[in-house]
Amino acid sequence: MLSGGIDSTTTVAIAKAEGFQVYALSFRYGQRHVMELLAAQNIAAQFCVAAHDIIDIDLRRFGGSALTDNIAVPKNRPKGEMSGSIPVTYVPARNTIFLAFSLAWAEVLGSFDIFLGVNAIDYSGYPDCRPEYIEAFERMGRLATKVGTEGDGVLKVHTPLIRLSKKEIIQKGLSLGVDYSFTTSCYDPSPRGEACGKCDSCQLRLDGFRAVGIRDPIRYAG
Amino acid sequence: MLSGGIDSTTTVAIAKAEGFQVYALSFRYGQRHVMELLAAQNIAAQFCVAAHDIIDIDLRRFGGSALTDNIAVPKNRPKGEMSGSIPVTYVPARNTIFLAFSLAWAEVLGSFDIFLGVNAIDYSGYPDCRPEYIEAFERMGRLATKVGTEGDGVLKVHTPLIRLSKKEIIQKGLSLGVDYSFTTSCYDPSPRGEACGKCDSCQLRLDGFRAVGIRDPIRYAG
Repeated sequence: MLSGGIDSTTTVAIAKAEGFQVYALSFRYGQRHVMELLAAQNIAAQFCVAAHDIIDIDLRRFGGSALTDNIAVPKNRPKGEMSGSIPVTYVPARNTIFLAFSLAWAEVLGSFDIFLGVNAIDYSGYPDCRPEYIEAFERMGRLATKVGTEGDGVLKVHTPLIRLSKKEIIQKGLSLGVDYSFTTSCYDPSPRGEACGKCDSCQLRLDGFRAVGIRDPIRYAG
Repeated sequence: MLSGGIDSTTTVAIAKAEGFQVYALSFRYGQRHVMELLAAQNIAAQFCVAAHDIIDIDLRRFGGSALTDNIAVPKNRPKGEMSGSIPVTYVPARNTIFLAFSLAWAEVLGSFDIFLGVNAIDYSGYPDCRPEYIEAFERMGRLATKVGTEGDGVLKVHTPLIRLSKKEIIQKGLSLGVDYSFTTSCYDPSPRGEACGKCDSCQLRLDGFRAVGIRDPIRYAG
């Protein structure tokens, strides 16, 4: 799964480095910023993936999130607050819906390997980024499908970043030659595509680059 | 979840009888026969549901099933053969995708109860109709969501038909006043909307009505 952010891009690099043929899947789900889909397309091209598909699903009809509804994206939140409770940028069941589509495509392709760039350390408090959630999905996916039932392989949801800090993720990506100037992370970019620098996602990203000791190559507003 | 067939319609009747306020969810997923969506709309209206939503998702792009791809729907299969292996009418990960959307809507509504008319007896060999699959999804759903994490309820996937035969399902529905003339089951209806009477789904349906000892009120071709 490729969103065009730091985590999913690094995950593609890791899957390629491990010798997997990559089929990238992105989603147009009613997010405010479609910029991430352009980023995903650029990244898919850069990595010469076998195929890149963008699925259209309308999560706005359910609402309930600052990323898909008329709820303001919080800015300049202290980091302690981020991990305290589930933030308004959480999109109900989003990772479950995305993983379900990945499972469908994997099954049609005859693949047993789904790669997902979730992260349980700098994860902004989303329940569907926790290791126990991923394990439960994997178990369910094995029971859900033909490959899990009749096949000769075992479905695996790979989450190579789940125990890494943002700093370690960026270092890993750099070691694999990832160009982070192609990635986008902001929940609320300007119309010109500049990152706000203030939402949770921008703050986590900026902290990561600061910790690595290099400049974030994307453009920020102001 | 309401597909417009016997099982999901009976499930709506059961949920209503148990005192639940019903939010019905259907899917336009690239199925060959959109007739079932018209049936679902009629049934939703009949049961005076609180809301009925139809989600658009394109499962044809993945293919891999006779219901969404250019693969012939098998006809006149002996019943023993139906339960032997996973048939070509199986749509990869379909129930997982459908349940994932239900989970999203349930979370936004603040509901802890998802009703699904799956059936493990006359189930045509789909892996995602088995009790162990449903239990695994429920467990995953509790970990995936805000309600499961911070809420004061526990997510439950209700499958009131899972251990019933088609005969028992129809009897249950009739006792609750279900009018099965509004339902549709055929995988390959004629352009005029008549059921083929020969696909697995028609055969299971006809066997059910035969076992109850009443005439199936829908129209069949020929």
